Amino acid sequence: MSEATLTFPEADARKLEPHLPPKPSSTTAAAASGTREDADPPPPPPQRPFVTLTYATSLDSALALAPGTRTALSGPQSKAMTHYLRSRHAAICVGVGTALADNPGLNCRIAPSASDDGNGQPRQPRPIVIDPHQRWAFTDQSKVLQLARADRGLAPYILIAVAGPEPPAERRQLLEELGGKYICLGDSSSFVMEWRDILRAVRNEGLDSIMVEGGGQVISSLLGAPNAELIDSVIITVAPTWLGAGSVFVSPARRLDSEGKPMSAGRLVDTAWIPLGEDVVLCGKIAKTSS
Amino acid sequence: MSEATLTFPEADARKLEPHLPPKPSSTTAAAASGTREDADPPPPPPQRPFVTLTYATSLDSALALAPGTRTALSGPQSKAMTHYLRSRHAAICVGVGTALADNPGLNCRIAPSASDDGNGQPRQPRPIVIDPHQRWAFTDQSKVLQLARADRGLAPYILIAVAGPEPPAERRQLLEELGGKYICLGDSSSFVMEWRDILRAVRNEGLDSIMVEGGGQVISSLLGAPNAELIDSVIITVAPTWLGAGSVFVSPARRLDSEGKPMSAGRLVDTAWIPLGEDVVLCGKIAKTSS
Ligand SMILES: NC(=O)c1ccc[n+]([C@@H]2O[C@H](COP(=O)([O-])OP(=O)(O)OC[C@H]3O[C@@H](n4cnc5c(N)ncnc54)[C@H](OP(=O)(O)O)[C@@H]3O)[C@@H](O)[C@H]2O)c1
Ligand SMILES: NC(=O)c1ccc[n+]([C@@H]2O[C@H](COP(=O)([O-])OP(=O)(O)OC[C@H]3O[C@@H](n4cnc5c(N)ncnc54)[C@H](OP(=O)(O)O)[C@@H]3O)[C@@H](O)[C@H]2O)c1
Repeated sequence: MSEATLTFPEADARKLEPHLPPKPSSTTAAAASGTREDADPPPPPPQRPFVTLTYATSLDSALALAPGTRTALSGPQSKAMTHYLRSRHAAICVGVGTALADNPGLNCRIAPSASDDGNGQPRQPRPIVIDPHQRWAFTDQSKVLQLARADRGLAPYILIAVAGPEPPAERRQLLEELGGKYICLGDSSSFVMEWRDILRAVRNEGLDSIMVEGGGQVISSLLGAPNAELIDSVIITVAPTWLGAGSVFVSPARRLDSEGKPMSAGRLVDTAWIPLGEDVVLCGKIAKTSS
Repeated sequence: MSEATLTFPEADARKLEPHLPPKPSSTTAAAASGTREDADPPPPPPQRPFVTLTYATSLDSALALAPGTRTALSGPQSKAMTHYLRSRHAAICVGVGTALADNPGLNCRIAPSASDDGNGQPRQPRPIVIDPHQRWAFTDQSKVLQLARADRGLAPYILIAVAGPEPPAERRQLLEELGGKYICLGDSSSFVMEWRDILRAVRNEGLDSIMVEGGGQVISSLLGAPNAELIDSVIITVAPTWLGAGSVFVSPARRLDSEGKPMSAGRLVDTAWIPLGEDVVLCGKIAKTSS
């Protein structure tokens, strides 16, 4: 809980700017007002937030050494970048696998700057946890809830499946007391959520930008067709390391062309490779595809 | 056969220089003489050549869309770089999977420069094909042999297992007529070759540098412990694309620490990230590990 504040150099922040959503006015009140500090970039379509996909990967496309474990992949500069990115998004999304493996804070610890909310505190993103089967048995001691109680982060919105049971009353109470909530998605026949529905639900909460952070399944499914077209910006940190076979890998589903032959699953355009310490940060947009 | 000559900018070549072997005097006569044009970098240990591992990969660590197919991953600048690297190595190594999938030329088409052999032709690397089971049924029409016949490349040295049968006489004759040969490795009980033995055999042929180019199995096995310590330099081109599940992946074997927990399989140090067109080139050395 006493983790230090991080700083991200202005010069690096400027390089990221073309790949970021418009500066949100306030994560809590962005909904109705719709005001923006910066009117340059086009507003996101009203059905969904601006979507930034971001993750840190090894050279062999691994996010962690094994399912259920957290691996420090990238250097300190990259960690500061992640927190800077969080300050620039209204919401931040992870799958339940990450919630279980990492006990993540999902808050923003960047030093306040021009982009803060005026009270000397960084803007906090709303954590969104995709947990159709309610596998995340969070308690008062879970890091994200502790941070919310200490006013150093927001309580999560947890996306659960309509098809599942009612969440336990005491857990709902704990969540709601801190400003979080359950959001039911989907229909009664499936625990799989469509990304369009996930993003519409997020937008309906007044959250106009979201950073999708992990883990492997969440990223691979968002990168796969036809979901990838929902992504506005991609920011990937590549560390010069190999985690090896058996790790948590990112790889979108196989795509086939009109003749049934395998084709590239996706490509980035308007790319920038920004060295950051020992790592490199790759920014880009998903290329439109004809097929 | 009429493919164009490629040029690689001097400025980019200078950035690669710290990651390259000493300039070879001549691929054909390097053996006995041992003379070097450039005496700066330390000579390779006498048991093996200077080993450069190089490959082009997607963001999801794939080399090709499917086994048995060739995929154009990186841009034209990166292709020119590959040929420049070939001009700087006495040998170039691929596995039989690549020989079968790609019908590769394995020659050098870089425009002659200061590093040529004086007759206006680029230096040609000796192709080394690892083919323990003699699966590569090459003919006079195979690209690498056509290029050798046209004096635009060298005929391959093919590493076959002692445990296997004698190669067919007519194939041996074709190979030897063009200056290639079979080299028998290993013992009578196994078709798996040790990298130390492969590299010693290459060195015994007077070849003092080798570029290991692919494919997936060859690279993953060389990157895995304990082979990785045989690598002197790594040069990887990363393209901003995902090939997707089912591709030819590179990932070294899982490594465990002294307590049996998974640990990083390998890391690069002294890294440089060099943007090249839409791609990035990562150069570095394999970090020494304590365990
Ligand atoms: N390097 C990085 O940047 C980074 C970032 C974050 C996490 N990580 C690592 O990633 C690992 C976790 O990854 P993971 O792949 O195991 O888990 P994950 O992607 O975090 O979560 C996967 C789970 O989320 C649910 N889910 C995801 N998409 C869904 C959809 N469209 N509809 C319904 N449910 C959906 C599913 O839950 P059900 O199975 O219950 O249906 C699925 O099993 C951890 O080791 C963590 O440390 C790394
Ligand atoms: N993107 C790039 O930079 C790049 C470069 C080159 C190739 N590629 C692609 O890679 C693919 C081929 O990769 P691949 O993994 O299928 O094949 P590969 O790595 O080229 O060859 C693998 C085969 O080589 C033999 N081999 C390798 N190491 C050995 C050892 N230590 N001892 C004994 N035999 C050994 C084995 O033959 P046996 O099975 O007979 O034992 C093995 O099956 C192709 O699609 C090609 O286009 C891409």
